[in-house]
Amino acid sequence: MATAGIAIIGDEILSGKFVEENAAFLIGELRALGVDLRRIVVIPDDKTDIAQTVRELASRFDHVFTSGGVGPTHDDVTIAAIAEAFGMAVVRHPELEARVRAYWGARLTEPNLRLADIPAGAHLVYGKDQVWPVVAVENVYILPGVPGLFRRKFVDIRDRFRTEPVTIARVYIDADEGFIADDLDHVVAAHPGVKIGSYPRFSEKDFKVLVTLEGRAAGEVASAFAVLVERLGGRVVRSEPPAST
Amino acid sequence: MATAGIAIIGDEILSGKFVEENAAFLIGELRALGVDLRRIVVIPDDKTDIAQTVRELASRFDHVFTSGGVGPTHDDVTIAAIAEAFGMAVVRHPELEARVRAYWGARLTEPNLRLADIPAGAHLVYGKDQVWPVVAVENVYILPGVPGLFRRKFVDIRDRFRTEPVTIARVYIDADEGFIADDLDHVVAAHPGVKIGSYPRFSEKDFKVLVTLEGRAAGEVASAFAVLVERLGGRVVRSEPPAST
Repeated sequence: MATAGIAIIGDEILSGKFVEENAAFLIGELRALGVDLRRIVVIPDDKTDIAQTVRELASRFDHVFTSGGVGPTHDDVTIAAIAEAFGMAVVRHPELEARVRAYWGARLTEPNLRLADIPAGAHLVYGKDQVWPVVAVENVYILPGVPGLFRRKFVDIRDRFRTEPVTIARVYIDADEGFIADDLDHVVAAHPGVKIGSYPRFSEKDFKVLVTLEGRAAGEVASAFAVLVERLGGRVVRSEPPAST
Repeated sequence: MATAGIAIIGDEILSGKFVEENAAFLIGELRALGVDLRRIVVIPDDKTDIAQTVRELASRFDHVFTSGGVGPTHDDVTIAAIAEAFGMAVVRHPELEARVRAYWGARLTEPNLRLADIPAGAHLVYGKDQVWPVVAVENVYILPGVPGLFRRKFVDIRDRFRTEPVTIARVYIDADEGFIADDLDHVVAAHPGVKIGSYPRFSEKDFKVLVTLEGRAAGEVASAFAVLVERLGGRVVRSEPPAST
């Protein structure tokens, strides 16, 4: 099993100028890849904050994805911050510089070249796009904040993160949480490898609580599901048996 | 100026079972109240992780809001975690216990009473709702994860957080970021009290970059706005002069 953390970098999200789309997208992608997402942090365009946050995420999780702060303007400080996080200098990468020069041609300005500046110990990760790679430092993948670009670049390299899928079952229950808590406690205690979530809903017509059971051992999920459905009896409105996500 | 942090607690968000709605809602609310949101953290239903995260947010920001993990089932560990974060015991609050008993009447089960268990040093924050207060520990406001309840409870107490509004101006530009970076650097250096953001967009018909200028000193925002529009000249497609948000 692989774990992941996400750092969304951008004043524009915290101040509500733009709605967050990249973590929302990555949640679904990582789930489909079988990767356990453990933390999302949304922080301002602040070099110290970015450096501390990325360092902490990189030490705790297998993969870290950052979004934002990689353009040519004054508020793009992610590259410098991640270099600082890993004690690296920022250097102009010759291969990237050549590509930036080729792309802009005669219209090139000095700020455009900042796109070729990366941490000295970074590596370039290529997917099908053989021109613009993803820049990564150790286990940290640096992605742009513009949603269309973020998605395209992640999709291009996502296959390298694929791991065992998660199996999930769902039980929809017509009883308040307080009346099923003891049954849940029983199933939780007997199935340590199954993660069981209980979610009250107040606006659904036919159920009051959704219980999810999930894990990577499909047999144990199936067993926990069977025991729970049996214990709850008539309180179960409907259920979805274990399936791979 | 007041600052804030948000902790969204819930496996169901990180695994994509439910779309995050509460931080998304609070971003707009805090902005309208003039509160500077500095950090959003989404974490699992893990007691240690919650305790560490809340402790850190509480020490860094004026106000902290948590979402989720406050029901009667095994996966509701927020109260115990926040008590741990502040070195407090969890106690059954007599006033809340009386309300829980009155609400459930003869149908009461032992798990329902967990709703009356709060950290020993918590205080109850009342808005117009004189029956169900918000439970707070120092500067941490503990809110439920169900979106309808979260919104209702925050709105009920929000007036206590109101502070000076932010002034914002917007400039829409038909040029790539690399061609305005030097102009932005100039305006940034001359207006240290104004936060300037540059946001490239690739799917808009009539502009390539949105630049925002914001701050609490309306005069300085107006001055920075005037200088930037003047410098950019014909590259400005349209602009929105300083206004309070």
